[in-house]
Amino acid sequence: MVRLVHYRIHGESRIGCIEDGKVIDLNTAYELMLQANGSIRAKQIAEAFIPANMVEFLQGGDESLSLAKKAVQFILQSPGPFERNVIYEYSDVKIEAPVLNPGKIVCVGHNYREHILEMGRELPPYPVVFAKFSNTIIGPQDDIPFFPISEQLDYEAEFAFVIGKRARNVSRDNALNYVAGYTVANDVTYRDIQRRTLQWLQGKTVEGSLPLGPWLITADELGDPSGLEVVLTVNGEERQRSNTANLVFTVPYLVEFLSNLMTLEPGDLILTGTPGGVGVARDPQVFLKDGDVVRVEIDRIGVLENRVKKVQEG
Amino acid sequence: MVRLVHYRIHGESRIGCIEDGKVIDLNTAYELMLQANGSIRAKQIAEAFIPANMVEFLQGGDESLSLAKKAVQFILQSPGPFERNVIYEYSDVKIEAPVLNPGKIVCVGHNYREHILEMGRELPPYPVVFAKFSNTIIGPQDDIPFFPISEQLDYEAEFAFVIGKRARNVSRDNALNYVAGYTVANDVTYRDIQRRTLQWLQGKTVEGSLPLGPWLITADELGDPSGLEVVLTVNGEERQRSNTANLVFTVPYLVEFLSNLMTLEPGDLILTGTPGGVGVARDPQVFLKDGDVVRVEIDRIGVLENRVKKVQEG
Repeated sequence: MVRLVHYRIHGESRIGCIEDGKVIDLNTAYELMLQANGSIRAKQIAEAFIPANMVEFLQGGDESLSLAKKAVQFILQSPGPFERNVIYEYSDVKIEAPVLNPGKIVCVGHNYREHILEMGRELPPYPVVFAKFSNTIIGPQDDIPFFPISEQLDYEAEFAFVIGKRARNVSRDNALNYVAGYTVANDVTYRDIQRRTLQWLQGKTVEGSLPLGPWLITADELGDPSGLEVVLTVNGEERQRSNTANLVFTVPYLVEFLSNLMTLEPGDLILTGTPGGVGVARDPQVFLKDGDVVRVEIDRIGVLENRVKKVQEG
Repeated sequence: MVRLVHYRIHGESRIGCIEDGKVIDLNTAYELMLQANGSIRAKQIAEAFIPANMVEFLQGGDESLSLAKKAVQFILQSPGPFERNVIYEYSDVKIEAPVLNPGKIVCVGHNYREHILEMGRELPPYPVVFAKFSNTIIGPQDDIPFFPISEQLDYEAEFAFVIGKRARNVSRDNALNYVAGYTVANDVTYRDIQRRTLQWLQGKTVEGSLPLGPWLITADELGDPSGLEVVLTVNGEERQRSNTANLVFTVPYLVEFLSNLMTLEPGDLILTGTPGGVGVARDPQVFLKDGDVVRVEIDRIGVLENRVKKVQEG
């Protein structure tokens, strides 16, 4: 079990994993396994250990993850048919962002070494961190809404990770044990709104400005999160390219740094910063427009592709 | 029913209101009223309409607030004794922050007119907004933890409001209908950490740095939120004094401004900014130290008083 998703079916949002191009529902898989073992309280036990919401599932930690893996094995090895739908064609469901309601979204600014150096700046002693709120999250199959409040919609390709265990004062040596998994993000920014005051929040947390997904690659499967190529294209044209090996503040560093300030909780989402090449820094500047397709690809993680859609006023 | 609280009893955190110096549990009050009316599903209906968590209660909107008022009237007019504990002495419970897990905490910087003008600055065209995360929230009876990561712990008295209805593109004329209530906040800041990068978040969202409470004064009871005196003292010595009449960006303005960027949800907390007189701006500078008592009082809202407590390392 490598790729964890949130998917939507019958008006409900539930967690699953991708196996052979199909989506297996984790909560239902576990309930069916418990039933097959004769449990009369299968439904309630499944709700307790493998709830259908990713943040709640991650709260269950290694225990829940390990039960989910067993349940998926059970489903894959059973002949079926099952009493309830548990396997779906990928094309029959809507894939949503892998976390929908994280308690925190922490973003890092200016974090790619080569880009900082090529701008003639010194490497910073501390990461710059800022927030987005969870109203920004949209999924890999959603359009990026472009609200008529600005002319300067910009992209930022980002490698992101999700916390898997409550973390406070964690050392960097130990930090990767606190990461549940990795995903792809686009820190969409209303550039003029970001810059109209010194604090960036207002241009960063506009509705729908955080495409995320398509899935979470679990930390045990990925191993070392450095050395991953990050590429962003707009309508097929390359605009950003770097590698997570160039991060000034690495994933372990960020877990240590942030957990020394605050308690990180399961489901908290951290965006590690964007490479050079954003639209506002190009010569001439170029911003996103209605119909543009923005694609972010990260090695071994996946591809996140969204279309920009102008929202009509009123 | 004017003052809504979160209180803790028997290891559980629940909402109540203050009447005659006592705490009435709202969920239990409604369940008892339903039972008295012969409802067999009283417990489930009470959970649905008046859940014990403030953010969830506010999601119920005017309907839940109105049922809660009826339930309190029922309790006050019943002779008792009741089948379950529903009224507590204020001194027998612990009062917590009135919202514990808001989806967003939006803070406004530089928002008091006289202070901006006396600094020789122009009034800003847009509010400066930044975030804290909900790991910062502590209650009116908690100490402010002073972690050994800085020498510059500072206070900021703030008038705060809580959203009561989902708000998107709300006009300022209509804005107060979207406010559930008002409370007192102290935007405790690790000043050197705030200033070590251009983005303030890292010095603003340190664990336990948002004393809040002691209660929510409901919006229908307060009426106009301007004209309230805000005073902060440290160990009895006045350090900040202004009036919400001096806010450059008023409560209605902020609801309009923020809801044009993002969807505000019930329970979202907005801090309206602090007057002049913070420790870092004094001559000589003076920061908080272990044992200091910080008291924020706002007319018609209440008093929030917390002691600073140095946290030992390791």
